[in-house]
Amino acid sequence: MGVVQSFAEGHWVSPRGATEPVRSALTGEVVAEMGSEGLDFGAMADHARRIGGPNLRRMTFHERALMLKALGQAVMARKEELYELAWATGATRADNWIDIEGGAGTLFSFSSKGRRELPNSQILIDGDTEILGKTGSFVGQHVYTPLQGVAVHINAFNFPVWGMLEKLAPTWLAGMPAIVKPAQQTAYVAEACVRIMVETGLLPEGAIQLVSGKAGDLLDHLTGQDVIAFTGSARTAELLQRHPVVAREAVRFTAERDSLNASILGPDATPDSPEFALFVKEVAKEMTVKAGQKCTAIRRALVPAPLIDAAQQALSARLAKTVIGDPRVEGVRMGALVGRAQLDDVRVKVAELARQAPIVFGDPEHVELVGEGLEKGAFISPILMRADDPWATDAIHEVEAFGPVSTLMPYRDLDDAVALANRGKGSLVVSAFTHDPDVAREFVLGSASFHGRMAFIDRDCAAESTGHGSPLPVLTHGGPGRAGGGEELGGIRAVKHFMQRTALQGSPAMLSKVVGQQLAGAPIVEGDRHPFRLRFGELEPGYSVSTKARTVTLEDIEHFADFTGDTFYAHMDEEAAKASPIFGGRVAHGYLILSFAAGLFVDPAPGPVLANYGLEGLRFVKPLKPGESMKAVLTAKSKTLKTPEMGEVRWNVRVTNQDDELVATYDLLTMNAV
Amino acid sequence: MGVVQSFAEGHWVSPRGATEPVRSALTGEVVAEMGSEGLDFGAMADHARRIGGPNLRRMTFHERALMLKALGQAVMARKEELYELAWATGATRADNWIDIEGGAGTLFSFSSKGRRELPNSQILIDGDTEILGKTGSFVGQHVYTPLQGVAVHINAFNFPVWGMLEKLAPTWLAGMPAIVKPAQQTAYVAEACVRIMVETGLLPEGAIQLVSGKAGDLLDHLTGQDVIAFTGSARTAELLQRHPVVAREAVRFTAERDSLNASILGPDATPDSPEFALFVKEVAKEMTVKAGQKCTAIRRALVPAPLIDAAQQALSARLAKTVIGDPRVEGVRMGALVGRAQLDDVRVKVAELARQAPIVFGDPEHVELVGEGLEKGAFISPILMRADDPWATDAIHEVEAFGPVSTLMPYRDLDDAVALANRGKGSLVVSAFTHDPDVAREFVLGSASFHGRMAFIDRDCAAESTGHGSPLPVLTHGGPGRAGGGEELGGIRAVKHFMQRTALQGSPAMLSKVVGQQLAGAPIVEGDRHPFRLRFGELEPGYSVSTKARTVTLEDIEHFADFTGDTFYAHMDEEAAKASPIFGGRVAHGYLILSFAAGLFVDPAPGPVLANYGLEGLRFVKPLKPGESMKAVLTAKSKTLKTPEMGEVRWNVRVTNQDDELVATYDLLTMNAV
Repeated sequence: MGVVQSFAEGHWVSPRGATEPVRSALTGEVVAEMGSEGLDFGAMADHARRIGGPNLRRMTFHERALMLKALGQAVMARKEELYELAWATGATRADNWIDIEGGAGTLFSFSSKGRRELPNSQILIDGDTEILGKTGSFVGQHVYTPLQGVAVHINAFNFPVWGMLEKLAPTWLAGMPAIVKPAQQTAYVAEACVRIMVETGLLPEGAIQLVSGKAGDLLDHLTGQDVIAFTGSARTAELLQRHPVVAREAVRFTAERDSLNASILGPDATPDSPEFALFVKEVAKEMTVKAGQKCTAIRRALVPAPLIDAAQQALSARLAKTVIGDPRVEGVRMGALVGRAQLDDVRVKVAELARQAPIVFGDPEHVELVGEGLEKGAFISPILMRADDPWATDAIHEVEAFGPVSTLMPYRDLDDAVALANRGKGSLVVSAFTHDPDVAREFVLGSASFHGRMAFIDRDCAAESTGHGSPLPVLTHGGPGRAGGGEELGGIRAVKHFMQRTALQGSPAMLSKVVGQQLAGAPIVEGDRHPFRLRFGELEPGYSVSTKARTVTLEDIEHFADFTGDTFYAHMDEEAAKASPIFGGRVAHGYLILSFAAGLFVDPAPGPVLANYGLEGLRFVKPLKPGESMKAVLTAKSKTLKTPEMGEVRWNVRVTNQDDELVATYDLLTMNAV
Repeated sequence: MGVVQSFAEGHWVSPRGATEPVRSALTGEVVAEMGSEGLDFGAMADHARRIGGPNLRRMTFHERALMLKALGQAVMARKEELYELAWATGATRADNWIDIEGGAGTLFSFSSKGRRELPNSQILIDGDTEILGKTGSFVGQHVYTPLQGVAVHINAFNFPVWGMLEKLAPTWLAGMPAIVKPAQQTAYVAEACVRIMVETGLLPEGAIQLVSGKAGDLLDHLTGQDVIAFTGSARTAELLQRHPVVAREAVRFTAERDSLNASILGPDATPDSPEFALFVKEVAKEMTVKAGQKCTAIRRALVPAPLIDAAQQALSARLAKTVIGDPRVEGVRMGALVGRAQLDDVRVKVAELARQAPIVFGDPEHVELVGEGLEKGAFISPILMRADDPWATDAIHEVEAFGPVSTLMPYRDLDDAVALANRGKGSLVVSAFTHDPDVAREFVLGSASFHGRMAFIDRDCAAESTGHGSPLPVLTHGGPGRAGGGEELGGIRAVKHFMQRTALQGSPAMLSKVVGQQLAGAPIVEGDRHPFRLRFGELEPGYSVSTKARTVTLEDIEHFADFTGDTFYAHMDEEAAKASPIFGGRVAHGYLILSFAAGLFVDPAPGPVLANYGLEGLRFVKPLKPGESMKAVLTAKSKTLKTPEMGEVRWNVRVTNQDDELVATYDLLTMNAV
């Protein structure tokens, strides 16, 4: 692969000073050289802020979402280039599938969420309008707008593609540019992926820059409009978090640190229950996938005390079947650690753990390998340890060997299991193999605040389960305490990490113009054309029509009851309705009111309104009695272009009686031709 | 007042070592002594975690909300005790109204939001269920649960009551205990307020502890389940944020630091426009309320360059009318700074600022006072400075004199105004006095990410405006960068700061039991009683009924059209409906389907269902054609007790056709007797 370049201020640049070699995890050969000397980090941050930010902020959420999809397609189209490079990281094809295709899948997921859940505009509204004065002339509305700085992504070595794309997707969708600093061990894969994306020509200038090598003085240039999103070791996270600029400027900082994740076999399990087998399979899988180099891997396997021998036996038998070696050889299931330094570190940690929890499977110094020329590779056997008194030792809850290493331990009862899970002081994920919902609920109440994700796996969901160790784009990833206190992914939740929430205050008229939506209390525009005759592009929020009034007679009510079968006493039985504190006499059906309202405002002939396809937030506020009259006011509230041909229009409908009292209110959704 | 006590581990304790005196801001007399020596901070944190947390977590959100209301009532009932104590802080009765009654009002606001927007249970569901597998047997659901540690509140001196209660309200509503450490200058007021609340007997043991004096080694005892919520100076915030335990344990840290808030007179204003007068009034008010000791006060007043002389003149005239002195004397509008140290600090900062921006109103060394015996009080005149070239000086954007001090400066055009506002590097609030929505929108797009709150004040909203400087319980308070990067208040948003978000995964059956709600795909319970005949307490999520089928004829459709007046072509004009890609022929009205569905499942006689009062999330999925049949399945989804007599039940309704294809889906809300 040779020299790994950086991408700075719109140009690919080779190292201008000393470089460091990166060796193949399999053979120990040098496969790449890199160095970031000579990069002007201040100029890079400035480039992102001056060029990249404005370029991205000019796009709407939907335009950014479509860009993500196209980038994912580009990665998929050239994925074999990445697979080919990634052999040298020591990972198997299955491991790299998680990284490469999982990475592209994350772009697709954010693209889809962005188009479905975000408006086709630049400001994201958060929550309801808050009425702040008695007459409603002063209101509040929370909005999100993109931070105007740069997102600095500092990534771990284990997933050079996915780990980069899972941060880039929400960053770009938010409208923020990024500087990516991948871990050096696997930066050549990240560089290739960035190259694929840059070569599409779809990324606006300044949206991405890449630091291949050390981050130099980059942090010194950050401000309160910037974000550091870090994934890696607790030690590095602490150093970054305590950087003087981070505290002084209140740089937004989020960390996802590897943690001592636990998996728990429920107290309801028996050696022949499906959950026992599922648990054993999952622990073995989590130990060996990516050679255990996953921040979500199971480091602590907890089983009911009476089952510990059975669990050890079953786990050992399963681990013994793991074929280890050159992942390019057919049948190999586990490859190498990322490098010799990592191997040394894992051995040191295993030795520390083994002083308190004896090794019951595997030998850190010896492993049987399949393949040729692997003598200098970073291979290690899966190592299972066992701690019979898990409260007597701290190391098993604190020391992480970042390889195929796990500790088996017994617990006494559910409370003990919860306490042991929490003893990890915060983790990315905990899983429980139980078929008992009461166990699950107790576990959530006792332990959820210690974990970013909790997976309950049983016979019902195992076939479709995505597993203990897999972060998903639609679910949050991160955890409190030891796991760093950060949060990533989770759909649109992640996008907000790169935006600022601001409470806007002002008159409804003013704020409606600002957010491009008709807020409660804003003045309406009474138009001279029926709103159903206006095309999507002609309609503006605030456009409004009032219908004629219609009297609702007792005959109407009785007829409706007869026709629909809805003979609820409040409509049909004067005596019973009188006795009700809510009705105080016969009243019109809510659905009759809705139906009559539609009759009052629908415009029959074909036109730009293609369909009324939904309704939101309907509340029947005041009953309508026989002989009273009703009318409706329909006001365009917001609109979102959905395809080049059509867009959704949300109308607020207010149905009032002859005294102008509110009878019902709801939002109506129509699909309109552009 | 004498000795100010701490409240530790359920007991009021006097200082066990050296104490420090606190002097009256008005007279310089010693009014209180305090010291925290002898407090065992580790034991206090432990008490909160072992006793307070479990006590609060046993309560539901609604129970905690009702507690907040009762505490607010207790504060109001004894408010005069607090007013009496608070004279010594130098504040006027109007200032103390903000503090004391604003504090109680914050408890009321959170109580109300808690009961309206949170479930009457212990787990808060966040967002929609995410389907994670093809058949829906594995799903994800985000939830919030309370952190299991302690919230450490470190408060500023300026609002000893409000500043405490605005943090306590969301903390307690979340289910978390607190240790409060008020600023020493005004801790005697905070102590009195805590005493009022403790004496109600409503607070569960361990829910509150109070440190009157220094915080000792409290931070050393914190973990990733704890929260530090700080309000005060940037310098102290930095020290706390960089504390080694904060980074190591990933203690949740939020800071609200005073910032260089700006107020801007819009480019559309003229000297005789209402916005000019409103701007002048607001700047003068923000300078003098609380003697300018507000983290939201206007420090930078920006006006269009041609208006700067007029603005200076009008402002000076207004400031000249400020009656300063003993706030107990009738007519006094501005009191003293909190103490002599504060006065010295303000004078130093004014001197620094005045080197770049000459003083155009007031004299930091001289002030006319109304009242007796004020010679040793901490009084200062309002000081207005003027910077004619605001880009030539850094100090006016960086140095805050925390008193009645502000700098007037000109801007060239809107872009310049936005850039100057952002030059403060992040603030709590910015206000703009403009009547032009385009100005407001440009300002939001250019500047919102630098500010936690943006107030647009004009002739339309001024009468009801709560003003530039007032944080409101329902709107977020905090800001990026210089303002600390934190966020408080904002209704339920603030509650989440004291909870952990966790992504739960599992089968819909399992997760439904965990969260106490029927999630999509969970098995239903077909009961033998009509669901409308079950009382609130008898209903469980998952209880379900299927209706009979009903054929919808062309006659039904035509009759409904005739009856309601809804003669939309899709129902009435075969040829036009055929031409539509959505309908492909005549179809039944959506409201006809809704009405028939109600007819199929309504149980007519009086019973526990008091009313169907609303509907959510209606989507018409597939048109129903004449001659097709429909049936409905009604499943209890969730329930929330609203009063001791009744509760809301949310039913999911699925209307399907003769081929079991989904025609429409919605949630129906009923109010049920308990």
